[in-house]
Amino acid sequence: MNGMTTSGPTASVFMTDFYQMTSAYALWKSGKHNERAVYDYFYRTPPFGGVYALFAGLRDLLDYVARFRYTPEKIARMRELLPRVEPEFFAWLAGLDYSDVRIYAMREGSLAFPRVPMIRVEGPAAPAQMLETHLLALCNFPSGIMTNAARYRVAAGDDKILLEFGLRRAQDGNRASHYAVLGGFDGTSNVEAAGILGEAPKGTMMHAFIEMFSRLGDIKNPMLKRVGGAGIAENFTDEVLEFRRLLGYDNTNDGELAAFIAYALAHPHSFLALVDTYDTLLSGVPNFACVALALSRFGYAPVGIRIDSGDLAFLSREARRIFRVSDSAAGTPVVCSRAKIFVSNDVNEATLWALRAQPHEINGYGIGTHLVTCEGSPAFNGVYKLVAHGGAARIKLSDTVEKVTIPGAKDAYRLIGGDGKIILDLMVEAGFPAPSPGEKVFARHPFIEGKRAHIIPTRVIPLLDLVWDGRIVAALPEPQAVKRHAEAQMEFLREDHLRPLNPTPVKVSVSGELYRSMHELWMREAPVPTLQ
Amino acid sequence: MNGMTTSGPTASVFMTDFYQMTSAYALWKSGKHNERAVYDYFYRTPPFGGVYALFAGLRDLLDYVARFRYTPEKIARMRELLPRVEPEFFAWLAGLDYSDVRIYAMREGSLAFPRVPMIRVEGPAAPAQMLETHLLALCNFPSGIMTNAARYRVAAGDDKILLEFGLRRAQDGNRASHYAVLGGFDGTSNVEAAGILGEAPKGTMMHAFIEMFSRLGDIKNPMLKRVGGAGIAENFTDEVLEFRRLLGYDNTNDGELAAFIAYALAHPHSFLALVDTYDTLLSGVPNFACVALALSRFGYAPVGIRIDSGDLAFLSREARRIFRVSDSAAGTPVVCSRAKIFVSNDVNEATLWALRAQPHEINGYGIGTHLVTCEGSPAFNGVYKLVAHGGAARIKLSDTVEKVTIPGAKDAYRLIGGDGKIILDLMVEAGFPAPSPGEKVFARHPFIEGKRAHIIPTRVIPLLDLVWDGRIVAALPEPQAVKRHAEAQMEFLREDHLRPLNPTPVKVSVSGELYRSMHELWMREAPVPTLQ
Repeated sequence: MNGMTTSGPTASVFMTDFYQMTSAYALWKSGKHNERAVYDYFYRTPPFGGVYALFAGLRDLLDYVARFRYTPEKIARMRELLPRVEPEFFAWLAGLDYSDVRIYAMREGSLAFPRVPMIRVEGPAAPAQMLETHLLALCNFPSGIMTNAARYRVAAGDDKILLEFGLRRAQDGNRASHYAVLGGFDGTSNVEAAGILGEAPKGTMMHAFIEMFSRLGDIKNPMLKRVGGAGIAENFTDEVLEFRRLLGYDNTNDGELAAFIAYALAHPHSFLALVDTYDTLLSGVPNFACVALALSRFGYAPVGIRIDSGDLAFLSREARRIFRVSDSAAGTPVVCSRAKIFVSNDVNEATLWALRAQPHEINGYGIGTHLVTCEGSPAFNGVYKLVAHGGAARIKLSDTVEKVTIPGAKDAYRLIGGDGKIILDLMVEAGFPAPSPGEKVFARHPFIEGKRAHIIPTRVIPLLDLVWDGRIVAALPEPQAVKRHAEAQMEFLREDHLRPLNPTPVKVSVSGELYRSMHELWMREAPVPTLQ
Repeated sequence: MNGMTTSGPTASVFMTDFYQMTSAYALWKSGKHNERAVYDYFYRTPPFGGVYALFAGLRDLLDYVARFRYTPEKIARMRELLPRVEPEFFAWLAGLDYSDVRIYAMREGSLAFPRVPMIRVEGPAAPAQMLETHLLALCNFPSGIMTNAARYRVAAGDDKILLEFGLRRAQDGNRASHYAVLGGFDGTSNVEAAGILGEAPKGTMMHAFIEMFSRLGDIKNPMLKRVGGAGIAENFTDEVLEFRRLLGYDNTNDGELAAFIAYALAHPHSFLALVDTYDTLLSGVPNFACVALALSRFGYAPVGIRIDSGDLAFLSREARRIFRVSDSAAGTPVVCSRAKIFVSNDVNEATLWALRAQPHEINGYGIGTHLVTCEGSPAFNGVYKLVAHGGAARIKLSDTVEKVTIPGAKDAYRLIGGDGKIILDLMVEAGFPAPSPGEKVFARHPFIEGKRAHIIPTRVIPLLDLVWDGRIVAALPEPQAVKRHAEAQMEFLREDHLRPLNPTPVKVSVSGELYRSMHELWMREAPVPTLQ
């Protein structure tokens, strides 16, 4: 596990709720700390008003589990915090590790539906329970942000470039950037997160840079070498100004043009101009055209523009029109016309859907705030619940049926139809035989007696694999493999699961045996109240 | 700065947007990197629908600034990311530090109002600009969460105990816990965050613990020593069962009672029972009463209960009633009656206000999700804007008047009236004389010409202090001092600033001179469009 790539700083044993420690002691003192317990990590209601989530955070969790140890320093602090407990407890704690715990989990990046376990933890009650806060803290936000990113990708369409620019507004920028890319973004501006992902960070230009130039005289050294030239620098500003005269763009802002020239001189291979500082259509876009044409004349391919305010659909169309006019006037048909148009003004999922319904010329989006903070569902409500204890299934009852847990250690399978789409997810008691492709399976709604079906799946995917058995069972997929896995998973969903308004829920079911044992337990445990 | 307490992991130079680096190179190549620039950190719209924010994150920021250095390792990575730039740039970068930069800032925990700078950065353009992403990433979320916590405190009232329990749902749990406590919470369950704050973490009991007990026989060793006794342990379970018989609470859940006994045996000094696992009023509260009375008989003071579901106001009143009945039946008038009642079911600011308007017996709240994710305003929209460059004030224009920046390096003062409440905040050009208590000051609305006033303040508080001048100017307040400062700051606000619905905005103004120079610059820079 050494050197394993995690999405952020490694978790400490103290990144937990204090009651995990007080409860562990109470279990230890009651002699119950080694009784076998089974816990499920699952969620009840899909985030963002949708019907699915993508599971993430497993790599960070197993990194924690593998490194878990109460060092003498931590034990010393525990003695301060629990001054009255029996000293033998600390000896037990100092020797504690996760060697006797088994963790089954979905592959990171997998689609997860309500009540289907994403993780199952089996082992001695105390360490299995103590994992709760860590597991939730390490998996909830990653699952939330990865799901959010996937939803943005669905809304934008596959042909658009999506860049994550949210570090400055994020609550946890590094995890936000990391899992946004894994969920479907093409890149991030976050230098650290990009490095962990093994990618180059992305970026454009900033307003403050442009504001620092006020006249063409601010260009100190206008010389630039041509690509494939003799290595002698020539005057780039002159070339830009020649195009400016040719195109008649003489009323644009000189400071902005100077800033564009300065940027192009510094980064001729990656010139992407922010065009809305003064006036997008009257200044920014024409200034870009002049610099882009000059760059092209010098042998460089300009990248494009970013629009950060105004009516994005309208401005993108007008910008494209000005690009075509400029190319035409300059006699260079594809220099400006093929420039990419990025937009970045408080874009959220709803904006992306709205833009799909209107004509525009946008190629890519720079997205920050609403993506990284998961506005709409800022908390992913994954929970970690006891489902078996001492060999017996346990059910958590609630007046709200949705809050009743599915008891017992369970395996889960995804049944795929002939069209390659999900028919349903099926939970069965752990150890029971798996459904087989081409064979009839009986599946029941977990709560509604009348809802049941026979399914003949074309493909059966086991969802929970043993990932920890005292050590990492098999090397975990690298981040880029998680990204590809998530992309493939999204293909299991039908259009009607993905639509923004009233999406069709994906069916989640239990086997006939699990239905029976669950409802027997329910009837046994639920008191029959006397209403007076 | 070594060993300075920060709220989380120390920031890396790579915790930034890539365009800070590409822009720095473009400035360097243009010979503009050492031109003097001034930046303001401020926000435009208060979070959470309110009229104020608390400024936080300065300690973490200065920790970063003091440690700032591009190590050879970082330079090597930069060379990979920017393979085409002139090598001399990296030599410049390797030698870069913040010795030539000055940072003025509000004291952490200060009230901050729209457009008033919380931080002013002055220095060479490149390093001053490069600070943007770090400053925003380090101050925005802390300011947001601290403000949110203060709002919860206002809503709950000063007599209630507020505990932060949100680690499992937080995006950044450690910063959330840290700044929630600084903003007015009495404690956190987060062990790591509590340690950094120099506090003991807080906690109660969990459902899973209770579910692991199913009968009284689960108590392996019922012996407990009396406080002040001869050191001989006596049978505690027998004592509990005696009270159970006396009070007639024989229909409660045995497993729950066993769990309570086990917890009391482990933590007799801090017995706080979670009472809603089976039935709050029929099982949990009576079971608590039996254990609490037995603990009291053994010389221990029970702490109280936590209710995690249902109608919190109703259940708290009924619980208190049962406590009184139990005490009365047991002949011990204050054991149960004085128990604290905590509630913790998805409580948010609106719940706290609603509870103030109805009778209840709640003493404290365990608050998670909505607090730590800043639901309602998950992003604090602080921005970092260039306000002067090369000795000249700069204004950022926008079609939206609220987005126009107040140009130039500015000082800011808080004018306090005879009632100890804020009259207004006043911005003046930096270096201009400060207003004096008892002397008439002329203040103008920054945008609306007709709004102006003379103020005779009782007290004048300078808001921006020099905190960095190549090194930390004066030791920064420790977290507990920040907490006390924030508490005192909140006293400056009137009731009508604090109410949840339509709070009165706090006035923010500029001096007559600043108004004049700002509007002259605005008229000079804003083009007069021709509408056709």
